[in-house]
Amino acid sequence: MSELDDLLRVTWGRAADGGAPTEAEAALGDGWAVGPAVNGGAVMAVAAAALGEAFAGAGHPDLLTWSAFFLSPTAPGPVHLQVETLRSGRTVSTGQVLVLQDDGGGRRERARVTATLADLGVMAEPAHRAPAAPTMPPPEACVPARRDGSPLAAAITILDRLDVRVDPATAGFAAGRPTGRGELRAWLRLADGHEPDVAVLPLAVDCLMPVAFDLGVAGWAPTFELTGQVLGRPAPGWLQVRLHADTVAGGVYVEDADVWDSTGRLVARSRQLAGIRVPEGGLPPRAG
Amino acid sequence: MSELDDLLRVTWGRAADGGAPTEAEAALGDGWAVGPAVNGGAVMAVAAAALGEAFAGAGHPDLLTWSAFFLSPTAPGPVHLQVETLRSGRTVSTGQVLVLQDDGGGRRERARVTATLADLGVMAEPAHRAPAAPTMPPPEACVPARRDGSPLAAAITILDRLDVRVDPATAGFAAGRPTGRGELRAWLRLADGHEPDVAVLPLAVDCLMPVAFDLGVAGWAPTFELTGQVLGRPAPGWLQVRLHADTVAGGVYVEDADVWDSTGRLVARSRQLAGIRVPEGGLPPRAG
Repeated sequence: MSELDDLLRVTWGRAADGGAPTEAEAALGDGWAVGPAVNGGAVMAVAAAALGEAFAGAGHPDLLTWSAFFLSPTAPGPVHLQVETLRSGRTVSTGQVLVLQDDGGGRRERARVTATLADLGVMAEPAHRAPAAPTMPPPEACVPARRDGSPLAAAITILDRLDVRVDPATAGFAAGRPTGRGELRAWLRLADGHEPDVAVLPLAVDCLMPVAFDLGVAGWAPTFELTGQVLGRPAPGWLQVRLHADTVAGGVYVEDADVWDSTGRLVARSRQLAGIRVPEGGLPPRAG
Repeated sequence: MSELDDLLRVTWGRAADGGAPTEAEAALGDGWAVGPAVNGGAVMAVAAAALGEAFAGAGHPDLLTWSAFFLSPTAPGPVHLQVETLRSGRTVSTGQVLVLQDDGGGRRERARVTATLADLGVMAEPAHRAPAAPTMPPPEACVPARRDGSPLAAAITILDRLDVRVDPATAGFAAGRPTGRGELRAWLRLADGHEPDVAVLPLAVDCLMPVAFDLGVAGWAPTFELTGQVLGRPAPGWLQVRLHADTVAGGVYVEDADVWDSTGRLVARSRQLAGIRVPEGGLPPRAG
């Protein structure tokens, strides 16, 4: 079992009426945290895994598109999943997962994930048109993101589970020199060698540092909503991730993520609306 | 009352326990149809209107971000709205609306809309950075989209409610000469003179022809999921809408919409995953 298999392990309860179960448990261990909270990508990956198991019998095991609203921070530890089937059709199935946690005062909702699943072998071929993968130096010539890299990074335990190599052209933020372009590019793989598959993609689009760093804005950006699309099953090897933000309006900004596999195929996209606290002096000028 | 006010009129039921009502009725008249079904933008606009009313008391009347999953086609006529509050916080409130219709066999879910609302006067100022509005000829030099324009358009009753002027540079699809770029640009306003406001935006991002037309693919594209972000309250006057599709993979494509107001400010964005049936010969080459 890889660390990712461990993260995605869902234990179903028994349905009261003998039908398909709708309640499950999972463990979001503290190895997937960003400071005090579990990374949103890990939360989405678990919810998607539950739906993949729920719809496997209908022939729809693969995530096709999903939306997640983040309602309160997920603490490391057990979560309760409440799974609802919205529609089960010939080519796709749609369901919703409420991710809940006990917090003293009762069960509190952490995230609500709605998703449509399909058989990607049928839905995603052939690829007619897609943005090309960015040109980047090879992983060994890029900047690794490690927990010992900064005091801030020490609490980001998820960096132990990931191998992240940031394109030096977009890594200036780490040295206090953000480019102001609002772009981050990185190679990504799982540290334990788990090869990328569809289940990795919700994690891949939301596990890097916020692209706001390249706008000179520090601190973690709380996500209101994230929507993703899966466009193919990734091939083994490194993933390339490009984060981009061209829209910043007052208290919010739009962060786009695109993910390519090792063959250069676009396999996932996402867009999220997140909070941002722009400093008094405004954003830095765009360089480069 | 304008035609839009008429569309967005929500009649609340009485809550059983004397608390805030959670059930409402609305009428999606046949004036908002695309062939046999109600336009998805109109469905989203009604759901957002219900949430705006539900959260007005908390000081969060404005849509900030929303996601809609389309589960079955909405027939023109009455809809039942089931409204749930997910979270009510200091700066934002989040809720979900189930859009249901009676169809003989009982209540059937048409769409599920989840949304976060805020006070945009607080959340959207100032605008730091955003894509610029496209350069387009003035509305009077653009191509009006009318029901009498083609046999296909005759059943698109929503065109009577809208004033759509397509940029001639992207209107080749109507003459059988799509550019292959996957782009449509148009001016948009409501035919009855209702000035744009936040409530118009869910309609604005999803009421034009599918951008697949410019890829040489005809027929209406069924939307699986659409997510939108609101970035400002629009000023009076024409809206500019740009649709763009750069990702087509087998059975699906990603359609982006960006909306600017008459001052050139970006006021909304959306991204949807929709089905597409690419002809045997593939997509046309890109021209222009």
